Amino acid sequence: MRQNEILIGAAYYNEYMPYERIKQDFELMRKIGLNVIRVAESTWSTWEPEDGVFDFTKLTDVLELACQYEIKVIIGTPSYAIPGWLAIKHPEIMSVTPDGQLPYGGRQSFDITNSDYRYHVNRVIRKMLMTIKDYPCIIGYQLDNETRSAHAAGPDIQAAFVESLRASYPNINDFNQKFGMDYWSNRVGKWEDFPDVRGTINASLSAAYKRFLRDCITEFLSWQAEIVREYINPGQFITQNFDPSWVGYSFGMQPEVNQRQAGACLDVAGIDIYHPSQDALTGAEIAFGGALARAIKKSNYLVLETQSQGQLEWLPYPGQLRLQAYSHLANGSNSIMYWNWHSIHNSYETYWKGILSHSLEPGETYNQIGEYIDELLPIERHLMNLRKSNMAAILIDNESLTGIEEFKKDNGLDYNEILRRVFDACYNMNLETDFVYKEDDFSKYKLLIVPALYSSDNNTINKIRDYVENGGHLIMTFKSCFADNELKVYPDAAPHNLTDIFGMEYDQFTVPGSASLLFDDGQSFSNEKFIELLRPEHCSVWARYSHPYWSRYAAVTHNKSGKGSASYIGCYCDKNAFSKIIRRVAQIAGIHLPGYQFPIIRRVGTNDFDENIEYLFNYSFENQTIVCNRPCSDLITGASYSEGDGITIPSWNLVILRDE
Amino acid sequence: MRQNEILIGAAYYNEYMPYERIKQDFELMRKIGLNVIRVAESTWSTWEPEDGVFDFTKLTDVLELACQYEIKVIIGTPSYAIPGWLAIKHPEIMSVTPDGQLPYGGRQSFDITNSDYRYHVNRVIRKMLMTIKDYPCIIGYQLDNETRSAHAAGPDIQAAFVESLRASYPNINDFNQKFGMDYWSNRVGKWEDFPDVRGTINASLSAAYKRFLRDCITEFLSWQAEIVREYINPGQFITQNFDPSWVGYSFGMQPEVNQRQAGACLDVAGIDIYHPSQDALTGAEIAFGGALARAIKKSNYLVLETQSQGQLEWLPYPGQLRLQAYSHLANGSNSIMYWNWHSIHNSYETYWKGILSHSLEPGETYNQIGEYIDELLPIERHLMNLRKSNMAAILIDNESLTGIEEFKKDNGLDYNEILRRVFDACYNMNLETDFVYKEDDFSKYKLLIVPALYSSDNNTINKIRDYVENGGHLIMTFKSCFADNELKVYPDAAPHNLTDIFGMEYDQFTVPGSASLLFDDGQSFSNEKFIELLRPEHCSVWARYSHPYWSRYAAVTHNKSGKGSASYIGCYCDKNAFSKIIRRVAQIAGIHLPGYQFPIIRRVGTNDFDENIEYLFNYSFENQTIVCNRPCSDLITGASYSEGDGITIPSWNLVILRDE
Amino acid sequence: MRQNEILIGAAYYNEYMPYERIKQDFELMRKIGLNVIRVAESTWSTWEPEDGVFDFTKLTDVLELACQYEIKVIIGTPSYAIPGWLAIKHPEIMSVTPDGQLPYGGRQSFDITNSDYRYHVNRVIRKMLMTIKDYPCIIGYQLDNETRSAHAAGPDIQAAFVESLRASYPNINDFNQKFGMDYWSNRVGKWEDFPDVRGTINASLSAAYKRFLRDCITEFLSWQAEIVREYINPGQFITQNFDPSWVGYSFGMQPEVNQRQAGACLDVAGIDIYHPSQDALTGAEIAFGGALARAIKKSNYLVLETQSQGQLEWLPYPGQLRLQAYSHLANGSNSIMYWNWHSIHNSYETYWKGILSHSLEPGETYNQIGEYIDELLPIERHLMNLRKSNMAAILIDNESLTGIEEFKKDNGLDYNEILRRVFDACYNMNLETDFVYKEDDFSKYKLLIVPALYSSDNNTINKIRDYVENGGHLIMTFKSCFADNELKVYPDAAPHNLTDIFGMEYDQFTVPGSASLLFDDGQSFSNEKFIELLRPEHCSVWARYSHPYWSRYAAVTHNKSGKGSASYIGCYCDKNAFSKIIRRVAQIAGIHLPGYQFPIIRRVGTNDFDENIEYLFNYSFENQTIVCNRPCSDLITGASYSEGDGITIPSWNLVILRDE
Repeated sequence: MRQNEILIGAAYYNEYMPYERIKQDFELMRKIGLNVIRVAESTWSTWEPEDGVFDFTKLTDVLELACQYEIKVIIGTPSYAIPGWLAIKHPEIMSVTPDGQLPYGGRQSFDITNSDYRYHVNRVIRKMLMTIKDYPCIIGYQLDNETRSAHAAGPDIQAAFVESLRASYPNINDFNQKFGMDYWSNRVGKWEDFPDVRGTINASLSAAYKRFLRDCITEFLSWQAEIVREYINPGQFITQNFDPSWVGYSFGMQPEVNQRQAGACLDVAGIDIYHPSQDALTGAEIAFGGALARAIKKSNYLVLETQSQGQLEWLPYPGQLRLQAYSHLANGSNSIMYWNWHSIHNSYETYWKGILSHSLEPGETYNQIGEYIDELLPIERHLMNLRKSNMAAILIDNESLTGIEEFKKDNGLDYNEILRRVFDACYNMNLETDFVYKEDDFSKYKLLIVPALYSSDNNTINKIRDYVENGGHLIMTFKSCFADNELKVYPDAAPHNLTDIFGMEYDQFTVPGSASLLFDDGQSFSNEKFIELLRPEHCSVWARYSHPYWSRYAAVTHNKSGKGSASYIGCYCDKNAFSKIIRRVAQIAGIHLPGYQFPIIRRVGTNDFDENIEYLFNYSFENQTIVCNRPCSDLITGASYSEGDGITIPSWNLVILRDE
Repeated sequence: MRQNEILIGAAYYNEYMPYERIKQDFELMRKIGLNVIRVAESTWSTWEPEDGVFDFTKLTDVLELACQYEIKVIIGTPSYAIPGWLAIKHPEIMSVTPDGQLPYGGRQSFDITNSDYRYHVNRVIRKMLMTIKDYPCIIGYQLDNETRSAHAAGPDIQAAFVESLRASYPNINDFNQKFGMDYWSNRVGKWEDFPDVRGTINASLSAAYKRFLRDCITEFLSWQAEIVREYINPGQFITQNFDPSWVGYSFGMQPEVNQRQAGACLDVAGIDIYHPSQDALTGAEIAFGGALARAIKKSNYLVLETQSQGQLEWLPYPGQLRLQAYSHLANGSNSIMYWNWHSIHNSYETYWKGILSHSLEPGETYNQIGEYIDELLPIERHLMNLRKSNMAAILIDNESLTGIEEFKKDNGLDYNEILRRVFDACYNMNLETDFVYKEDDFSKYKLLIVPALYSSDNNTINKIRDYVENGGHLIMTFKSCFADNELKVYPDAAPHNLTDIFGMEYDQFTVPGSASLLFDDGQSFSNEKFIELLRPEHCSVWARYSHPYWSRYAAVTHNKSGKGSASYIGCYCDKNAFSKIIRRVAQIAGIHLPGYQFPIIRRVGTNDFDENIEYLFNYSFENQTIVCNRPCSDLITGASYSEGDGITIPSWNLVILRDE
Repeated sequence: MRQNEILIGAAYYNEYMPYERIKQDFELMRKIGLNVIRVAESTWSTWEPEDGVFDFTKLTDVLELACQYEIKVIIGTPSYAIPGWLAIKHPEIMSVTPDGQLPYGGRQSFDITNSDYRYHVNRVIRKMLMTIKDYPCIIGYQLDNETRSAHAAGPDIQAAFVESLRASYPNINDFNQKFGMDYWSNRVGKWEDFPDVRGTINASLSAAYKRFLRDCITEFLSWQAEIVREYINPGQFITQNFDPSWVGYSFGMQPEVNQRQAGACLDVAGIDIYHPSQDALTGAEIAFGGALARAIKKSNYLVLETQSQGQLEWLPYPGQLRLQAYSHLANGSNSIMYWNWHSIHNSYETYWKGILSHSLEPGETYNQIGEYIDELLPIERHLMNLRKSNMAAILIDNESLTGIEEFKKDNGLDYNEILRRVFDACYNMNLETDFVYKEDDFSKYKLLIVPALYSSDNNTINKIRDYVENGGHLIMTFKSCFADNELKVYPDAAPHNLTDIFGMEYDQFTVPGSASLLFDDGQSFSNEKFIELLRPEHCSVWARYSHPYWSRYAAVTHNKSGKGSASYIGCYCDKNAFSKIIRRVAQIAGIHLPGYQFPIIRRVGTNDFDENIEYLFNYSFENQTIVCNRPCSDLITGASYSEGDGITIPSWNLVILRDE
């Protein structure tokens, strides 16, 4: 979806305000150039305070004035948090999890497949859309919000799961064989005897249930999209705010949603990106979230939520709000939307602060946003709809994430930590990467990095094999191609069906102990948690283990194969070892990397005028200088540079270069 | 309540003894001068082994002999631990908590508002009191024991809670608005739809429920007091053993009880004080607990429980038992009662040892108590009923404690840790402090310290304003006057309604990161967890942040206002920074502080003879010497000192000075 | 039970295989000399996929071929993991624990006393045994597997427990008195009012319930043995694989089983031993497990499970598999059985790897086992049925383990850590020890070590007294003889009834703080967690506390008494202090210890030819040399040594010496 302006705004909750102030708020927004709000997704109980009693006044008040103040509006359907009366009327709506039924109170705590829930969601969405659909300020709709399945495992949803298994495995013996159900007396004699899946110790079954829950989310969003499409007007879009995984901030792939599949029903992908700030601001989470979002619709995306003040430790230093805004654009976003406009005076997220502090007066954060918008407006048409043509991709996979998680008890490995180690290595060396899924075509990339693809069916393995045969350069890490699509370990040498491509195989692995990683050039790095003992056959050995007993095994191998090459990293090594290997393969693949690296970060793309746009960011306290390699000028300042000129990027600042 | 002797004794459980030995025990008590026991509160199942079957023999045996041996007795009503048959007869008595219903077995695990429970409590108390009330050895009654609400949240008590809300907010829209219930779809359309409060994520609602539970305790004790008053004889008192909060020992304000309000039905306040010992004995917990207890009835108090041997790490060094005993008296206690006489041979508290070890033979602890009683008896009339006239007070508040706790997830702050940091700073510099509650008159104090008064209604804020206007000197810390009585954050600049008094305001706060605290005299201190970014207007700035970006903000401010002054500490700084600020304000307030500090601790008061009594304690291994500032003599040794004499206080020892 | 060959093999699960391969597996086994498999215990649902539908094909396939390939088979009864249909048919089978009812899915999660469970166990065992009993390859039966009670506490089993109490204490007042039930109102007026034991805070009651659960296991195994005995043929044995306690590997005494009593129904004891490997391989767990197993039947035993590859960190270094195999034999095992043959491709223990890796191809581990079997076969008749005549024993006790555990909250002490500290001290100095139980005769030992015998009835105390009187040398540690058989602390000086024997007594204990342990020879050691303050009367003081206040007390005492001696260790001291004391007493007892110690470990015994066999192991990276003290030769290499020769044991290697 191409846009004609960059959307800058915030979530807006008229319902939460301690006193009536829409006009005041909209005047403040207009004053600094905010042009969009996102509303209505959190407060079903406000729109329907009693069963069947609807009152959209607080919403239509906002829409009336938004039209008047020329503020665009994205409407969220209010299904992610239910009213208390609904939980009282249909107690079985609340999710029955492995730890028991969830109480009413929080959000995303119910079974999204429950038919009573669906009845009421359908009704409230239609009532809302009938009421508001013709307000011209509405530009799009968001379905639900950060959708979750709430680990629901009540009788009805479990019955649906068993039906889905039965459809895949009409003969129960095939199911038992594939899932290894004989183990610990778990064999199921007939489908009617299927036990409650919540107690299972079978990782294949547990993972299949998690996949089923992801499918439920895909189906739920698709169902909502169909409802909403009955009401939307031409030019309006449908989106969802997907969110990455979370470790106190956005980190890694979302385990509970298959965003690629769930995004099929959308017009444009949306994403939440919350990231470390102050001294810890690196731009890496912004780039990671951006790559996640681009991978959904293979296009530009909307940042639907990001922090302005946010949590205690995120209060931005002067200049950082501006730097973050440009960072989103440089990764392909067409919006910067803060959560939220004000700071909430009651309840749970009181200290997740918005653009305005609790005083509701314009302050530091408000002013800094205004300042960067003033600077941005004259050049926005050169920055929006940025097109990426990255030469490297990273293959990500929900099934493998689940597989690694199921066996974390055995080795302490975490899929997202491995993924981030790979992604961050690329980010820091200014190798821009896309994310691809198994179902995507990755033949166009010069370099394909495959971290911990634990679950891999033979189709995928053959695609990877073809990729290499046809000239692609592959880097695969430990724990890849080890198990099939139901997490059954392949009963042959690992990596399954690729040992010829790699020219090595292994069937033993252990903890590193004192084993460090020793490269052929003498450089040495540490390992942690896990090493595989690779037996090279006809490959080059780039690194071995430095260890009294494991030195006979390879740790990192490289092999020319077909028209391409296949490199394998058999150990959970230091991030600098990852960098070294990726850099070496990139060179073989003919990818040019700049001479500078983090904290100087480079992002490039092509704009609507087919100009090459090159962002250079400085994520540090110190000024940074690079040498210009061609005639170009800075879009912001207008300064011109010739080849060989020094370009200085001040602390927490950037330049945006356009070829002259 | 004034007494005519100091009560020294122990809890006594005839019911727990492995064999019959009351006479033997009472002879041992008399031999070293113990004069009081506390009995009967723990063993309802002994008094009523089956429903309606009563047997007080084990109690009357004790009372008979207590009269004979002239040992005074405090009777506890046995309501804090119920018999098994009662839990079986009325299963709904057991508390239904957010984590499910509590099992039978422990104490304080039931709903004290349950009507079946009340029926049986009423019956057993009346049966007991009718049986024993005329034993002349009885000097008083204790209601229940360390009363708790057991986090009860079953249907009946929740219905009562909703009724109480409805009484406060007859219009449900007012309730929704005040509590911000629209948030996450929690709005309640009608009172009948009020969802189970156990799942709420609304901090205002959660805090209101905790306050309601405190009110239940106040009501319960008042109800018991009325029953007991029907039976007591002239001269007998009613008390309760309140306990501070707990971190392995007594620490901070009790979150679950409003002791000030719950104490209204009592004649004299009682308290439990358990404290670190051996190398970690400082006297601070004894002083803290004493101040808590004095604040309840604004008078002397009874230490109803303290350790003799207690837990493993508390076995006292030689001399410490004596030091601890005098410490209690120096803070205004009229009793020293140990828990308990013997060491228990079965069950849970086997290793919470008493005066006698499990051998039940006189040992070290018994002997050391005897030794200090011999010394104390000749001077006890000079030490009891000690009256305090402290010039400084600390404002404590259950609502603010709850408020800070509700948002601990956001900033890691803990009310009691902040309170102790303030209290201990005063203690260590020998600034004796009282505790005051919002409802108290604090106009008489020269210095008022207000730590983290997160929840503050406008009445309280105006009282504080008036205090300063009328000449009081105020020190307030961060996180004060931020939210109203229902934890709704005030929608204006902080500290609410006091920005003129302080001459500064703020609306941003963050983690300190590298920001240290830099005073105007160049001294520097560390911060932790939380800093506010103060914008000084017409105040003095005593300290700023040393930081690349936050140095523009103030950290500690001071302002003359009206006839007094208002100082503000905007950061969770090191205890030495607190000391520095308090010392500076004390000087402005005209409070004289001695030149020595911890481990030399000074406590003063006036006795029944209107003599000024000055205790000087040495809580350390090393002898300590101070210079005498007036003619005086030591009550214990009789030694006389002139001005300029050195007074040496040996290791773990004390002197008690009286003006000559 | 004497054997005529050493059993070397593995658990074998035809049911788990990803494809049909029994022949292939048996050929691989035969090729390297494996001669035994253990089968069938884990997969009831395979044998009975639907209620009453039996199918033993996967088992009989194995038995047919085992006969053909001359592989011996141990049959496990399949009762430790139930089919899903059984949990659905009788939901009350699943264990109701203090934390609620367990879900179906794992193993050992049901109530083994449940009558429906027993009905179905009885039926499936009989069906299985009728089907297979005449296969001549079967050499024995294993009852259940690592039997557990699953902390079952549902109504039926609790009723049985109350019945058992009532049988022991016909008068409920005796029960109340013995258990101290008055405490916290827990007195039980009549048996009908006995509350749910799951909530109890009474350690005596809680411990009695744990003992009752151990008795249930004893009864359950005995019941199964009777069934199996109806079917077994002459020469076949019945065993059980008992397992030690677990801290990620085998460690200490099993709390949930009284192995001594449960073993009464067996012909031969079996045990699981899993141990640290790689740099952490010491042989101590192998020796500990061996001593546990020998103590059950006072004879040789079978290692039914041990690791080949096992967990990630256990992948053996070259040579370690061989070293481990000989270590088992040196402690008296007649078997080395790995868990398991292959590595599992699905479910839970996917990364608990077997002899074959997931590739199911012969690899490193397979080859290393083959190599040591080749070496072992020629000498096996000299190594099997090794008889031990140890001069020292350690008294172990489930009741005391439970007692220490119940009060861990008070002192942090852990029975198994204390036991291991004592055992390891002996192990490291090459003092071979047996384990004895209270009911055993320990008069034959020169040295008896009694660690933390917290629970000790007067019978046992008198046995210990007699042991010393009659010339035994006793070392007892802190926390011994403190409480009776129901954990009621003795109401007299400690150690109860032995103060005359020790010539000391105590009634106080505390944390060590800075108190170190100072021996009479000036050597000093650290303490942790717990010290007793011993008051010597007529004993020698071997060590005191170095401390400003506790130096007046003894820490370690020694006393000649009767014809023997009694030493007491009053503190949880460093392992080197334990070694020093044990070495000193061993010398007094006339036990000769070799001059070398760990990593050189010596194990001795007598074989079927009445030869003295002496193993010398080197558990380290470095070669080790000792001086030969007599003419002897190495069974493995045939090398002869004369007195004074150096015998060098290479890294991770051994010699087996036989007197010439």
